[in-house]
Amino acid sequence: MFVKSTVKYIQSLSHKKQRDTDGVFIAEGPKLVEELLSVATVTPREIFATAEWASAHSKYKECISVIDDVSLSRISSLSTPNQVLALFTKPVFGQAFQPGQKLSLLLDAIQDPGNLGTIIRTADWFGIDHIFCSPETADQYNPKVVQSTMGSISRVQVHYTDLTTLIDSFPGEPVFAAALGGKDLYEVKAPSHGFLIIGNESKGISQELLLKASTKITIPGKGRVESLNASVAAAIILAAWTH
Amino acid sequence: MFVKSTVKYIQSLSHKKQRDTDGVFIAEGPKLVEELLSVATVTPREIFATAEWASAHSKYKECISVIDDVSLSRISSLSTPNQVLALFTKPVFGQAFQPGQKLSLLLDAIQDPGNLGTIIRTADWFGIDHIFCSPETADQYNPKVVQSTMGSISRVQVHYTDLTTLIDSFPGEPVFAAALGGKDLYEVKAPSHGFLIIGNESKGISQELLLKASTKITIPGKGRVESLNASVAAAIILAAWTH
Repeated sequence: MFVKSTVKYIQSLSHKKQRDTDGVFIAEGPKLVEELLSVATVTPREIFATAEWASAHSKYKECISVIDDVSLSRISSLSTPNQVLALFTKPVFGQAFQPGQKLSLLLDAIQDPGNLGTIIRTADWFGIDHIFCSPETADQYNPKVVQSTMGSISRVQVHYTDLTTLIDSFPGEPVFAAALGGKDLYEVKAPSHGFLIIGNESKGISQELLLKASTKITIPGKGRVESLNASVAAAIILAAWTH
Repeated sequence: MFVKSTVKYIQSLSHKKQRDTDGVFIAEGPKLVEELLSVATVTPREIFATAEWASAHSKYKECISVIDDVSLSRISSLSTPNQVLALFTKPVFGQAFQPGQKLSLLLDAIQDPGNLGTIIRTADWFGIDHIFCSPETADQYNPKVVQSTMGSISRVQVHYTDLTTLIDSFPGEPVFAAALGGKDLYEVKAPSHGFLIIGNESKGISQELLLKASTKITIPGKGRVESLNASVAAAIILAAWTH
């Protein structure tokens, strides 16, 4: 039965505190939901879907509540609600971070959910397994982040921690920082492992953290514009280093 | 005087039709507004600012209306209104498109304003002068686009036109398409001029347009994720080809 308390509960999941308490996150739309249903790291807890979607996915009928479009629009945060909204348990990964193996990203207060989602998706494309975020970074389970990751949230491990402490804990990892006035990206040898720090959208990387970087990396441009979008900068460096 | 009709007028500029009729667009916040004030291609028509901002920019006092924070929040579309909102006349550029000189971007129905803004800003970083958009692409003067270009809208010329006709009009320009299943980006020689097509966020490049491409370009990845964000794909190709 689709009742007011269900609507209220789903709305409450727009708050990080509620998501953390319950260990769930929301995903919407057939493409994303079907991708998440296909991976082993996340489990559907409840699925709210139109009759059509539900009948095409009867395998999950035990956790599907069939609802009409009006009800879907009441719980959806999309501008165009799309067939299905699902609550998934947060992903559980088998593999902890191991130094000396791959490049990992360190995000210093990335605040735009769209940027964070795009970074997670791009990292997945280039085979990155771990992203470490400062506590000021947007929450990976924010619905806008989840929607823009396109399912990568189920493959890339996103951790929240103090980044300075993290760097100090792994002294064998070289630390790179995407910053102005550094070495030309295309003149730096691609590292086989290490940390790449990407800074806040307007403030860049905090001074304290920048001091931890052994190499500052700059993407060469034509000097007409002050900076690149954070997710674009991350993508360009990952592309240059992992192809 | 700050009256209801002013509020209504500024709100009406959220619609493309009104912006087109009046030839103006909205920019907000000191950083963006000050950058636009410093360039020759755009002219401020009206500036609404707090007393503090106004007194620091008395040079523009003829077109400044001093307003308080409450009034600013009524006309602002930012979640945190920030000192100043300005109406600028659309940019006027001296230089028309010339084939055979540089790479230009062709955007086939990029619909997310944030993606379009990021693409304009990235193109500016890499020295691109012209972007051609299919009519289905978001409007460059949509306030969300303007805010995410960070001022690049005053330097990069964004045109709206039928892309197939455009390509047919310049048979000397090689046409590249960012698409799956094409040549490895890093195995294609960087072109000195030509068109690079970037497709819609979910549907990619339309079939008709894809047939016009002489070379399909693919960004090599690890195969874990289906696609990259459109603005990320554009950035990676531009970075690879212009450094």
